[in-house]
Amino acid sequence: MSHKIYVVGIGPGAYEQMTVKAADVLRQSDVIIGYTVYIDLVRDHLPGKQFLSTPMTKETDRCRMAFSEARKGKTVSVICSGDAGIYGMAGLMYEIGAQYPDTELEVIPGVTAATAGAALLGAPLIHDFCVISLSDLLTPWETIEKRILAASRADFSVCLYNPSSKKRRDYLKKACELMLKYKSPDTVCGIVKNIGREGEEKSLLTLQELKDAEADMFTTVFVGNSQTKTLSEAMVTPRGYQDV
Amino acid sequence: MSHKIYVVGIGPGAYEQMTVKAADVLRQSDVIIGYTVYIDLVRDHLPGKQFLSTPMTKETDRCRMAFSEARKGKTVSVICSGDAGIYGMAGLMYEIGAQYPDTELEVIPGVTAATAGAALLGAPLIHDFCVISLSDLLTPWETIEKRILAASRADFSVCLYNPSSKKRRDYLKKACELMLKYKSPDTVCGIVKNIGREGEEKSLLTLQELKDAEADMFTTVFVGNSQTKTLSEAMVTPRGYQDV
Repeated sequence: MSHKIYVVGIGPGAYEQMTVKAADVLRQSDVIIGYTVYIDLVRDHLPGKQFLSTPMTKETDRCRMAFSEARKGKTVSVICSGDAGIYGMAGLMYEIGAQYPDTELEVIPGVTAATAGAALLGAPLIHDFCVISLSDLLTPWETIEKRILAASRADFSVCLYNPSSKKRRDYLKKACELMLKYKSPDTVCGIVKNIGREGEEKSLLTLQELKDAEADMFTTVFVGNSQTKTLSEAMVTPRGYQDV
Repeated sequence: MSHKIYVVGIGPGAYEQMTVKAADVLRQSDVIIGYTVYIDLVRDHLPGKQFLSTPMTKETDRCRMAFSEARKGKTVSVICSGDAGIYGMAGLMYEIGAQYPDTELEVIPGVTAATAGAALLGAPLIHDFCVISLSDLLTPWETIEKRILAASRADFSVCLYNPSSKKRRDYLKKACELMLKYKSPDTVCGIVKNIGREGEEKSLLTLQELKDAEADMFTTVFVGNSQTKTLSEAMVTPRGYQDV
């Protein structure tokens, strides 16, 4: 191995939400590669670095760019929002990396939207939970549907990524209708938007209300299990301590 | 609200694995409360702080201690390893906090073992996944069993917390046997121990091999979905990009 690339999760938004280690790695990098929106989140904190970007849909190009820069002898970081291993670039970097056996990859974990959003809402994911993306760009809707039903039937708390987009306006509604087959309409739910960024907001609602809620691609959705409750305006799933 | 308590996830182990924000909050705190093992992970980095602890099973006492210190006008942080909202103290703090309406809680998210362990192994959680604890201390085994079966049938990747302990030596084996009802014995799996601490180790194995693997309370287990593969000694779940 003569080259190395860091794949860095920068957390949900604000610079201070990345780990100390992630900040160190970026400071030590010559080149930082990422989707423009994420580059803009870190640029002001990292003077003198070379920043490279490609449009959102060009993930493969971005990965190849990283391997190409690393081969020039540079220290390269590829950045993702949240954690690089949760719907992030880590997987694609390993897949493309198979063609670059002289380059080692190190994934630097970050705070993903599930944990950052949970922290804003209270403690919705204290017990067993599922993370499901509603994007059917790369996954058949039948698979997504099967997973939503399985998670609901087994009383998991559920965190939904990519609940909606311009082309998929009714997906959150469809997901709620599936969950309502097994979860009560009164199930405590939460919505978080723009975590750690300008326009951050949160709201609590029931599963019945969630069905008609507004969501966009910067929204993360939380659906409680049968034990989840509202406590002082927080969404809280008990771990089950009997002595409280 | 006249008092405030921070509930801080310090990440999986090493100090540098907490977020910049978490480190800031701890520096600004007068009192830091946590299980002894976690206090020891941060103590050397935080000279001049007051550290308070209780034994592992006394979580409720630890929470009450935090509210009591906050009422003295001190800035208090309660620390957890990983993320405070994933099998952590955030839930219990909100539950006990209902009795202390004059004290506000703020959860500072951290990197949980699921994402930190995934980063060490490669990219096992790139697509939909479930997090399940095998501890039946506070959850009936029937519920755990139902969730393992549901997750396996719907082809989720699965991350298992608390896979084993002295009293539950055969639980990982039992979980694997349940998963084998729906997942192939060749399913790619990974084990990570002591993430970010002394004795950190990882290994890749099949679901069939996992059945007889050694695990303890510092182990996190990853079971792939049907697409998960081994690439250059890394465990990688594809997101499904067709153009690679």
